[in-house]
Amino acid sequence: MQIIITGGGGFLGQKLAHALLHSSLSFSELLLVDIQEPQALADPRVRCLQADLTAPGVAESLISKHTAIVYHLAAIVSSHAEQDFDLGWRVNLDTTRSLLEACRQARPGIRFVFTSSLAVYGGPLPEVVDDGTALTPTSSYGAQKAMGELLVNDYSRKGYVDGLALRLPTICVRPGKPNRAASSFVSSIIREPLQGEQTTCPVSPALRLWLSSPATVVNNFLLAATLPRGDGRSINLPGISVTVGEMLDALTKAGGQAARDKVSFAHDPAIERIVASWPGQIDNSRALASGFMADWTFAGIIDSFMTHDLQEAS
Amino acid sequence: MQIIITGGGGFLGQKLAHALLHSSLSFSELLLVDIQEPQALADPRVRCLQADLTAPGVAESLISKHTAIVYHLAAIVSSHAEQDFDLGWRVNLDTTRSLLEACRQARPGIRFVFTSSLAVYGGPLPEVVDDGTALTPTSSYGAQKAMGELLVNDYSRKGYVDGLALRLPTICVRPGKPNRAASSFVSSIIREPLQGEQTTCPVSPALRLWLSSPATVVNNFLLAATLPRGDGRSINLPGISVTVGEMLDALTKAGGQAARDKVSFAHDPAIERIVASWPGQIDNSRALASGFMADWTFAGIIDSFMTHDLQEAS
Repeated sequence: MQIIITGGGGFLGQKLAHALLHSSLSFSELLLVDIQEPQALADPRVRCLQADLTAPGVAESLISKHTAIVYHLAAIVSSHAEQDFDLGWRVNLDTTRSLLEACRQARPGIRFVFTSSLAVYGGPLPEVVDDGTALTPTSSYGAQKAMGELLVNDYSRKGYVDGLALRLPTICVRPGKPNRAASSFVSSIIREPLQGEQTTCPVSPALRLWLSSPATVVNNFLLAATLPRGDGRSINLPGISVTVGEMLDALTKAGGQAARDKVSFAHDPAIERIVASWPGQIDNSRALASGFMADWTFAGIIDSFMTHDLQEAS
Repeated sequence: MQIIITGGGGFLGQKLAHALLHSSLSFSELLLVDIQEPQALADPRVRCLQADLTAPGVAESLISKHTAIVYHLAAIVSSHAEQDFDLGWRVNLDTTRSLLEACRQARPGIRFVFTSSLAVYGGPLPEVVDDGTALTPTSSYGAQKAMGELLVNDYSRKGYVDGLALRLPTICVRPGKPNRAASSFVSSIIREPLQGEQTTCPVSPALRLWLSSPATVVNNFLLAATLPRGDGRSINLPGISVTVGEMLDALTKAGGQAARDKVSFAHDPAIERIVASWPGQIDNSRALASGFMADWTFAGIIDSFMTHDLQEAS
C-alpha cells in the first residue's frame, strides 16, 4: 500500500511525511514527488522522486492499483500564479485533473486529499463565512483552487476517487524563507523578528486573518487519510481569527520590544487587495464535528514555532 | 466586425442568429459554427461553418482581431455529459477554455457570452436562491458549467476578455424533438400533446421549475451584447417559477382535456434527482435592474409557442 505526496519536497509536504511515518497508518511506501528532488527521510518506506507533474504521462506513471492515498500539495502559489497566468493554470488546474484521471484509471476509490485555499473566497463576504457561502475568487490562484474542488467533487460523485478538498487557513508560522504567496508576510512578521531580522508588513494592523499552525494542519491532513466518506467533500479547515495588530502584540510578549521593533509597515495595495479578499472568520462547526482541529491561541502558535522550528532554523 | 455563435446550428443558436440579423447591432459577419453544418440563413452577413471545436487549433482559427462578440452556446447537455464523462469535460470545459484563450491571443476585450445553467446549483438549497448562494453542482454538466464561469470570471478580471456568464432558466417550450438534457421532458409535456402526440412525465406534479421561453432568453442574449461591464459577471437570468402541475393545468386550458390526456406519468428517479436539485425560484433583482427580462405567465409561454413554433413544426 502506497501513499503519495505531491509537493513532497515543500515544507508542508516534509512535515506531513514525518507525521505519516510516525503515525499508526500502515503503508509500504511513501512516495514524495516534487519538481526538485525532495529531501530524503531516514525510513526505508520513503522514496523520493524528482518529476514535473505537468509533463504528459507523469501522473499516470506514479499512480497504480497499490496507491491508497494521494495528498496533492503541489501548487503555484498565489502571487506567482497572478504573475504567470499560463503556468498557474497548467500546474494548479491541469495537474490536479491529470492526477484525478490517473487515479480513476488505476483503481476507483483512491483517497484523494486536495489542498484548497481561502483564496476561493473574495469580494464582498458575510462577516462569518460558512459552507453555504459562494466561491467568488478574485485571483487566478483562487479560481484554479475552486475549479480543483469542483473536479474533486465530481470525480468523487462518480466514484472514481474518494476525494476531500481541504481549504487551508493561512499557515503561520512557516519556517524558512519568504515565498511568492501573497500571504508570505503573515509568517515573515513573526519569523524574521524572532530570528533577529528586519521585516516589513504590507497590510494594515486591522486586517483580520484566519490562521492555523503547520502542526495543526498536518494533524488535520492525518485525519483526512481515514475520515469516513461524508456528504461535504469541500471542507474549511478550522483556524483562529486574529488581526495583524493582535499578532504583533503576541510577538512583543514572546520576543520583547526588540522583536517588535524589527517590524515596519510599508503598505502594498496589491498584497492587501488579495489578502483582504479572504475571509477572516469561518463557521467551522461541520469540520469540528468531523474531528478537524484548530489551534487555541496565537501565543500558542508562536510558542510552538519557537520550540520546534526556530531551533531548526538557527 | 464579426459575431460568432458556437452551437450556431442548434435551436437556440438559430433563434439568436435571426434576432441578431433583425437587431440594431451593426456587424459585417455572423459566423455560425457547429459540429454539423448549421442551416443557412438568407442574409449575406451569415457564414456557416462545420467544425469540431475540440480539435486542436480550431478555436484559434475562428477568432481574430475583427471578432467583437462570441456567444458560446455549444455544449454537451446534462444527461449526455453524465453518460459520457470524457466527452462532457472535453466539450464543456476544454472548448470553453480554448475559446477564451483564442480571444485573449486575438485581441483583449472581446465580449464573451457564456451560457451557464441552473445545474451549477444542487444539493440542499435555500428556498430562494440568490447571487450569494454557493455553487454545488450534482452533475458533471453542472460542474463543467461552474468551472466555465470561473474561467470567464478570471479571464475577465485579467482583462483578457469582457465576459458574461448567463445562467439560463430551463427553456420551455423548445420546438423540435426531445434531446438528452435531463430537462427535456419540460418541453415534451407541452409540445407533444399540442402536436397530438403521447408523452410521459418522469417527475412528480409538485416539482417546481424555473422557466423561460426561448424568445425571452434570446432577448436577454441581445442585451448581453451591449451590457456595460459590471461587477458581477455571472448572472442568473430571470425566469418564472411554476410547478409541473401548474404547467399541466395551463396545457389543459390551452389545448383542452384531449391535450392533457396525452400526458401520462412514469417516474424516472435519475431524471427527478437531477432536475429536483436545481433551484425552483431565484432572486433576480440584480439581473432585472440590469435590464434582463422574464416571461409574465406560463400561459403566455404556451401561447407564444402555439403562435410561432407550432406552426413551424406542423
